[in-house]
Amino acid sequence: LPSADDSGLLAPGRVGSEAERATGDPAFTAALLDAEAALARAQAECGLLPATAAEAVCAAAADRARFHPRDLAERARSGGNPVIPLVADLTAAVRERDPAAAEYVHRGATSQDIMDTAAMLVASRALRPALADLRRAQAALAELAAAHRATPMPGRTLTQHAVPTTFGLKAAGWRALVLDAHDRLAAVRAALPAQLGGAAGTLAAFGAFAGADSADPGPRLASAFARATGLAEPALPWHTLRTPIADLGAALAFTAAALGKIAEDVALLGRPEIGEVREGGGGGSSAMPHKSNPVRTTLIAAAARQVPALAAILTAALTAQDERPAGAWHAEWQPLREALRTVGGACRDAADLTEGLRVDPARMRANLDLTGGAPLTERLAAELADRIGRAPARDALTRAARRSAQEGIGLAAALAGEDALAGALSAHEVTRLLDPAGYLGSAGALVDRALRRRPHPQEAP
Amino acid sequence: LPSADDSGLLAPGRVGSEAERATGDPAFTAALLDAEAALARAQAECGLLPATAAEAVCAAAADRARFHPRDLAERARSGGNPVIPLVADLTAAVRERDPAAAEYVHRGATSQDIMDTAAMLVASRALRPALADLRRAQAALAELAAAHRATPMPGRTLTQHAVPTTFGLKAAGWRALVLDAHDRLAAVRAALPAQLGGAAGTLAAFGAFAGADSADPGPRLASAFARATGLAEPALPWHTLRTPIADLGAALAFTAAALGKIAEDVALLGRPEIGEVREGGGGGSSAMPHKSNPVRTTLIAAAARQVPALAAILTAALTAQDERPAGAWHAEWQPLREALRTVGGACRDAADLTEGLRVDPARMRANLDLTGGAPLTERLAAELADRIGRAPARDALTRAARRSAQEGIGLAAALAGEDALAGALSAHEVTRLLDPAGYLGSAGALVDRALRRRPHPQEAP
Amino acid sequence: LPSADDSGLLAPGRVGSEAERATGDPAFTAALLDAEAALARAQAECGLLPATAAEAVCAAAADRARFHPRDLAERARSGGNPVIPLVADLTAAVRERDPAAAEYVHRGATSQDIMDTAAMLVASRALRPALADLRRAQAALAELAAAHRATPMPGRTLTQHAVPTTFGLKAAGWRALVLDAHDRLAAVRAALPAQLGGAAGTLAAFGAFAGADSADPGPRLASAFARATGLAEPALPWHTLRTPIADLGAALAFTAAALGKIAEDVALLGRPEIGEVREGGGGGSSAMPHKSNPVRTTLIAAAARQVPALAAILTAALTAQDERPAGAWHAEWQPLREALRTVGGACRDAADLTEGLRVDPARMRANLDLTGGAPLTERLAAELADRIGRAPARDALTRAARRSAQEGIGLAAALAGEDALAGALSAHEVTRLLDPAGYLGSAGALVDRALRRRPHPQEAP
Amino acid sequence: LPSADDSGLLAPGRVGSEAERATGDPAFTAALLDAEAALARAQAECGLLPATAAEAVCAAAADRARFHPRDLAERARSGGNPVIPLVADLTAAVRERDPAAAEYVHRGATSQDIMDTAAMLVASRALRPALADLRRAQAALAELAAAHRATPMPGRTLTQHAVPTTFGLKAAGWRALVLDAHDRLAAVRAALPAQLGGAAGTLAAFGAFAGADSADPGPRLASAFARATGLAEPALPWHTLRTPIADLGAALAFTAAALGKIAEDVALLGRPEIGEVREGGGGGSSAMPHKSNPVRTTLIAAAARQVPALAAILTAALTAQDERPAGAWHAEWQPLREALRTVGGACRDAADLTEGLRVDPARMRANLDLTGGAPLTERLAAELADRIGRAPARDALTRAARRSAQEGIGLAAALAGEDALAGALSAHEVTRLLDPAGYLGSAGALVDRALRRRPHPQEAP
Repeated sequence: LPSADDSGLLAPGRVGSEAERATGDPAFTAALLDAEAALARAQAECGLLPATAAEAVCAAAADRARFHPRDLAERARSGGNPVIPLVADLTAAVRERDPAAAEYVHRGATSQDIMDTAAMLVASRALRPALADLRRAQAALAELAAAHRATPMPGRTLTQHAVPTTFGLKAAGWRALVLDAHDRLAAVRAALPAQLGGAAGTLAAFGAFAGADSADPGPRLASAFARATGLAEPALPWHTLRTPIADLGAALAFTAAALGKIAEDVALLGRPEIGEVREGGGGGSSAMPHKSNPVRTTLIAAAARQVPALAAILTAALTAQDERPAGAWHAEWQPLREALRTVGGACRDAADLTEGLRVDPARMRANLDLTGGAPLTERLAAELADRIGRAPARDALTRAARRSAQEGIGLAAALAGEDALAGALSAHEVTRLLDPAGYLGSAGALVDRALRRRPHPQEAP
Repeated sequence: LPSADDSGLLAPGRVGSEAERATGDPAFTAALLDAEAALARAQAECGLLPATAAEAVCAAAADRARFHPRDLAERARSGGNPVIPLVADLTAAVRERDPAAAEYVHRGATSQDIMDTAAMLVASRALRPALADLRRAQAALAELAAAHRATPMPGRTLTQHAVPTTFGLKAAGWRALVLDAHDRLAAVRAALPAQLGGAAGTLAAFGAFAGADSADPGPRLASAFARATGLAEPALPWHTLRTPIADLGAALAFTAAALGKIAEDVALLGRPEIGEVREGGGGGSSAMPHKSNPVRTTLIAAAARQVPALAAILTAALTAQDERPAGAWHAEWQPLREALRTVGGACRDAADLTEGLRVDPARMRANLDLTGGAPLTERLAAELADRIGRAPARDALTRAARRSAQEGIGLAAALAGEDALAGALSAHEVTRLLDPAGYLGSAGALVDRALRRRPHPQEAP
Repeated sequence: LPSADDSGLLAPGRVGSEAERATGDPAFTAALLDAEAALARAQAECGLLPATAAEAVCAAAADRARFHPRDLAERARSGGNPVIPLVADLTAAVRERDPAAAEYVHRGATSQDIMDTAAMLVASRALRPALADLRRAQAALAELAAAHRATPMPGRTLTQHAVPTTFGLKAAGWRALVLDAHDRLAAVRAALPAQLGGAAGTLAAFGAFAGADSADPGPRLASAFARATGLAEPALPWHTLRTPIADLGAALAFTAAALGKIAEDVALLGRPEIGEVREGGGGGSSAMPHKSNPVRTTLIAAAARQVPALAAILTAALTAQDERPAGAWHAEWQPLREALRTVGGACRDAADLTEGLRVDPARMRANLDLTGGAPLTERLAAELADRIGRAPARDALTRAARRSAQEGIGLAAALAGEDALAGALSAHEVTRLLDPAGYLGSAGALVDRALRRRPHPQEAP
Repeated sequence: LPSADDSGLLAPGRVGSEAERATGDPAFTAALLDAEAALARAQAECGLLPATAAEAVCAAAADRARFHPRDLAERARSGGNPVIPLVADLTAAVRERDPAAAEYVHRGATSQDIMDTAAMLVASRALRPALADLRRAQAALAELAAAHRATPMPGRTLTQHAVPTTFGLKAAGWRALVLDAHDRLAAVRAALPAQLGGAAGTLAAFGAFAGADSADPGPRLASAFARATGLAEPALPWHTLRTPIADLGAALAFTAAALGKIAEDVALLGRPEIGEVREGGGGGSSAMPHKSNPVRTTLIAAAARQVPALAAILTAALTAQDERPAGAWHAEWQPLREALRTVGGACRDAADLTEGLRVDPARMRANLDLTGGAPLTERLAAELADRIGRAPARDALTRAARRSAQEGIGLAAALAGEDALAGALSAHEVTRLLDPAGYLGSAGALVDRALRRRPHPQEAP
C-alpha cells in the first residue's frame, strides 16, 4: 500500500527550505520530546522530582530515533492527540534507563501542555530562517531603492498609466512591506509562550505531587518550565486563551500577503509587453523550450493565496468553549504548520527573487513614452492655470489629450495645434514639462526617508 | 537532518483512512504516471504514436518504485511543478525499455494537463471511500431515526428549552445533511474531467506531430484521453476555467460543515449535565484516568473548522489570469489534497460515530422535566384561547411560568394557583396537556417522509 | 446625529442595480410581511383560521408604508430578530381592520419561519435580474467568440507568451464560466425552500390550534405555505439543516469568482502596453484628465475578492447546534444579503462590460510578433523531429531561440544561422511555420463546440 | 420603488451603537469632507494656497446637509469611487462662497488620498466607543474574578468534567482576552495614518502647483496634512502598501473572535441543564412565552462568526498591483466598515453582558458533584502513589472510577470497595481528598497575577 506521506510533491514553494525541515513530523516529534524534557528539568529544579529522574527523562528524550512519527500518528487516533502514545513510549524508554524514573515522565501535565509548548518551539525554530530571509530581502531592496532612486517608470493606477514614479520608490515601498512583515513576525516570535496548566489549567496536580504540606509550587514551576524551554512565560495558562495562535496566524498571513504584493508587481512588470523587471534564473517549461518562467514569483504568489485562509482558521479557533475545546484546538495543528512552512518558503523565495532581480531602465523609459506624455497633463494643467486660467487650461489639455490618443500623435504635437495655448507655452517649455524625469515630485525624498528605517532588532534566541 | 514529511502526526482525523492513502505523495505520483500512460494510450488509439511506444510508456509508468516523490519534489523547484522532473524520469525509464519510444513520452502535452488529470484521479479515488462512509452513516442514522421516531427530548433553541421534539426527528435531520453531502459529492465525482489542452489550451502540438496533411486530431484525442483515464470529457480545456476545482471545494466544505453539525450536537448532548447521547468507545486522557472523551466527535468538529477555509482558497482560484496563471493554479494543490483527506477522515469518523452512538431516552425525559412543563405553555395557550380568550390565557400563563421558574415549582402547581383558570382546566387536563410525549406535532410524519429519501445512486466507477 | 444607514456610498458595484433594491431593508421588510401573509392564507386554506382573518392579515401586510425598517431594527435588539416587533406592528394593524383577526397573526409560527422564508423570497427576487444579466453576458460573449473564432492572440502562461490562441477561444472560455455560474444560480434559485416548523421544528402548535380531535395538520399546512409563497417545499423544516443557505453561498461565491476571472483578463489585456481589449465607456479620474479607467472591470474584480469570504461564513453556519442556534443563524443574515447584492451588481457590470468590449486584433497580432516567433518553436520541433531527429532539432531550436532573445533578432533570422538546419527547412517553410495564424490547433473546433451549449432553461417564476 | 438602504434590520448586534453611527454613510461622507478640509488647511499652512481659500473650503465642507450620500453613491458609479462627485459638489459649494477659492478644492490630491484618510478617521471614531466598552467589560470581569476567586466549578475539557477550576479563574481568563483585544485595537488606533500621495504616490502635483522655483513641498505638506487630520504621519504614501488596513482587520477579527469565546462559554454555562451563569435581562420569543433567551450572548457569537472572514478580505487586499489596484482597494471599503460596526456592537454587548452576568455558585457546586468525584482521581493517584506505588494506585482508581460510573454510585463508595486501598486511605481522608474546593491548585494565585494587568493606556484623541 502506498504511504500517506506528504513530502512536498504538491508544495514546491517550501521544498528544501529550513522552515520545511523545522516543521516536519520529525521536527515536531523532537519538539514534543523537548517539552517533556523541559518539564522534567523544571520539576527537578523545583524539587518536585529527583535530579536523576530528570536526567533519565532528558536522556531518553534525546534519543530521537526511538520515536516514530507515523507510529505515534496511528496510535494518536484513540485519544485524539499524539502526546498520549508519545508519553507511553517515553515512559518505556526511561524505564529502560532508570526504572524508578519512569513514574516521573509527564507527571502533572496534560497533553495540551506538551502539544502547545512543542508548537511554540516549532514556530520559533521555523521563524528564525524566515526572519533571516526577510532581512536578506530588505537589504536587497534597499540596494535597489538606492540604485534606482531617480529611475523614472510609469506610475500605474487602475491598470492605466498615471504620472511617473521611480523604480526606487517602488522598491522602497516593497521594502517597507518586508520590514512590516519582519517586525510583526519578530515581535510575535519573541512573545511565543510556553504552556503549562495541567488538566484544567490550575496546575493542581503539581501541588498534589508536592504533598499537602508544601507551598503551592504552581507559579514557580510554570516559570522554571518557561525558562527550560526558552519560551516566554505567560501570565495564565492559555489552553483556551489562544492569543498566541491568533497573533502568529495574523503575522504569517500578513507576511504571505505582503510578499504577494511584490510578486504581483514583478509578475506584471516582467510580462514581455512590459519588460521592466525580470526574475533572475527562471524556470523551464515541459512543452516550450523558449520559455523562461518567473518561478519564484509564481510560488510566492501561490503562498499569498493560501496563508490568509489558513490564518482565518487560527483566528476562528479563538472562539472555543471550556478549559479545552473539542475541535477548535485540534483544528489549529495542521493549518499552523502549513502556514509556517509556506511562509518560510515564501521568505526564502522573496530573498532570492529580490537579490536576483534584473531591472531594465530603458524599457521603463520606453513605456513612459507609450502614452505620449498624457500623464503629464496634470503638470501642464498646474503650469498653465497660472498663465491662462484653470478652466481654459483644462479644456485645452483635455482636447489635446483626446486628439493625441485618437490620432496617435504625441501630446507635444497635439498641444502645438491648440490655439488657446499659442504664446502661453514655447516648444522648449513643452519639451521640458513633458519630460517624466522632471516630474518625480518627492520620490527621491521619500526613498531617503524610507531607507532610514531598519529591521527591528528584537529577536529571541 | 530530520525529514520534512507530514505523515499525519498533526492530523489524527485522517490517519489510517483510505482517503489519506489515496491522497499521499505516492498516490499522487501514481496518478501522474497514470495520466502519462493514458496520454500515450490515447495517442496510440488515434494513430499519433506507435502502439509499441504506448506499451513501453505504460509499462514504464507502471513501475512505481522507480519514482520517488521527495526527489521529484526537490527537482520541481526549478520549474515550479513536479511534472517536469517526472517526465524526465519517465523518459529515461522508457528509453531503457525501448529507445525509440522515448520521444513519445508526454508528447504534445503541457505539465498542467498531467497535474490536473492526476488531481482529478486522486479526487475520484479519495471520494470513493468517503461516499461509502457517508452511506454507512446515513444507514445508521436511518435506524436511529426509526427506532426513536417517538422518543421525546427537549427541543432546544438559542440554548434554552423550546417545545419537545423527538430524537428520531433529530436523527432524521442529521441524515438529511449526510444525504445532501453524499449527493453533492457523488455528483461532483461523476463530473470530474480529464484535462488536455497542450501548451495554451488549443491542442495545437498534437496537430503538429500529426503532420500538416492530417485532419486536426485534437477533439478526437481529447475524447480518447478522457476515456483512457476513466474521467469525464470536458467541453473545453479548463486550464483557467476552474469550475471542477471550485465545485469540488464547495462540496467538500459542505460535507465537513454538515458533519460538523452532527458533531456539535453530539458533543453537547453528551455533556455530563445533559447525557442524552454518548459516543461509543471513547478516548483516554493523558492526565485523568476517569475521563472518556468523545474523540471521533472532536475530530469531526476539527475538520468542520478547517475545510471551509481550504475551499475558500479553491473558490478564489477561479479568479486567475491568462491561459495558465502564475500562482492561482499552484495555490490549489495542497489545499485540495488537504480538503480531500480531511473530509475522507471525517466521513469515516462520522460513520463510526453514528453506528456506535448510545442514546439515553431516560435522560431525555428527565431533561424534559427540568423546565417543569414551561415549554408546553405554547400548547396551553392554544387550548385556553378557545376557553377564556387569547389575551387572558396568555397573561395567566406568563404569570404562572414566571412563578414556576422563580419558586422552582412545576408549572402544573403554578397553574393551580391561577384564579383565571379556575374551572377552565381540570387537573387531569393539565397533566395531559403538559405531557411532552403528547405534544410532538408532526415529528413522526416528518421522520417517515425523511426516511423515504435514499442516497443518490449516481456514481462513477 | 447622523444616521447609521448604508445607502451604497462604499459599494459602487451594486448601486442602482435591481439586486440592490431587492435586498434593501424595505424589500426585506416586505418579504417578512409576504411570509406572514402567506402563512395566514395557507392556514385559511387548511381550515385553521377564518378566511376573513386571512384577508385582514393580507391587507394589513400589504400596507408596507406602515412598517419602518429602522424602527423594527431598533426594537429587534431585545429579542435578537426583527420578526418580534414586526408581529407586534402587524397585529396592531390587523386589529384596526378586524379585531377578531388579530389573534391569528403569526399563529403557530416561530420567528425563524418568517425570517428564513423572507430570506428565500429576497434571494429569489434578487437572483432574477442577476440571471438575466448573466444571460446578457453569455450572449455578448457568444457573439465575440463567433466573431473572433480565428483571431490569433498570444496564449499566455505563467505571464509569458506561450503558443498562440484565439480571442474567440478566450471569449468562449469566459462564456463557459458565465454559463456555469448561471446554471448553478438557476438551480439553487429553483430549489429555494419555504420554512415552516414552529417553535422547535415539529409544527406542533398548528395541531394544538386545530384542536385535539383534528388530524395533524402539519404536513398539509407546510405544503400549502410553500405554495402560497411560491417557494419550494422542503422535506423537513430546516432551522438547523442549512443546506439552502450553504448552496446559495457556494453559487454566489462561484459567480463572483468566475466573473472575476473575466475581469482579471480584461484588466490585463487593457493595459496600455498590451492594448488588446478595452472596456467601453471608461471612468474619469479626480486627478488626471487623460485617464480612462476600466471601472466596470474594477468593480467586478472588487466583488470577486469579497463574496468567497462572505460565502465561507454561510458554509460555516451549517455547523450549528440544537433546533435553533445562538449565533450561527444570526450570522447568516448580513453576509447573505451582502453577497446577493454584490453578485447582482457584478452580473450587471459583467453584462455591460461584455456587451461594450472593444477588441483590437491588430494589437493582438503585434503582440504575437513581440516574441519573434519563439512560442512556435514547439511547432518547429515537431516538424524538424521527422527530418533531422528529435534531439538535434531541439538543440538547434534552443540555440536559435536563445540567440533570438539575446540579439533581439527574429527567430527566422536566428534559424537561418543554424548549420544543423541547412537544407532541412527552406526560408519559405520557416515563414509558414512561424505564422501564428497557422498554428491555432483545435481552437476553432473548440469554439464551435462551446457555442453549442445554451443556458439551462430551468427557472422559478 | 423601495430604497436600497441597509439601516440595520439584519444586524441587531450593532443597531443603536455608537460605532454604527460612526460608520454610516453620513459619517463617512463627513469624514470625506473632513479630509478635504484638512487638505486645504495643510496647503494653506504650507503657503500652497491662500488662507481665505482654505477657509472657504472648510466652511463649505462643514455644511454637511448639502452632501447626500445616496446621490454621491449613484454618481460614484461612473468613476468607481464617491470622491469624484463629492469634489464636484464641494467645488460648487465653495464657488458659491468664494469663486476664487473653487480651484483650490482637492488640488493636487487623488481620490484615494481622501478615501483612505476618511476611512482612517471613521475607524478612529468607531474604535473610541469600542475601546471604552472593552474597558467596561474588563472592569466587570475583574470584579467577577475577584469575587469568585475561590468559587469552585467544574473544569471542562473535551466536553467532559476535568479537575475543578474556579469561576474566578475563568473570568480572569475572559478578561485577559478582553485586554488583549483592547490593547491590540488601541495600538492599531494610535497608528492609523493619514494618506497623501497624489496621483501616483510621489506628491508631484503639489510641487507643480508650488511652481518650478519652489523647494519640493511634498514631505512638509504630508506632515501638515497628518497634523490637520489628527492621524499619524506615515513614512510613505500607502496607496498599495496596505499595512494599516491589514492591521486593522487583524485586530478587529481578534476582538470579535475573542469576545466569541466568552459568548460560547456563557451560552453553554447558561443552558438549563448546567445553569451556572445567566445573562441578565434576556430576550423574548415570538412563539414561547416562557422563554428567556441569551440575546446579547447570541449577538456576540454572531459577530464572532462574521468578522474573521471580513478581515481575511482585508488581509488579502495587501496583495495588490501597481500604485493603485483595480479592485483590491475597492474591495476593502464595505468589509472594513462592516467589521468596524460589527465589532463595535459586540464590544457594547460584551460590556452589558459582563456587567449583568448572574453567577450561581450553588449550581457550580451541584454540577461538580454530578461526576461523583471522578475528576479528583488525579489527586488520589498522586496521594496513593506514595503509599502503595504508582501502578497499583492507578489500577485501583481506574477500577473504582469505572464502577462508580457504571453503578451510579459516588467514587467514595466505590473506593471503599477496593481491597487494594484498605488501610491506605481512611474514609475521612477520602472525603477530604474528594472535596473539589480543596483541589484548586494555583487558581487563586493565577487570578491575582492576572488582575495586576491593566488596560494599555495608549490612546489617540
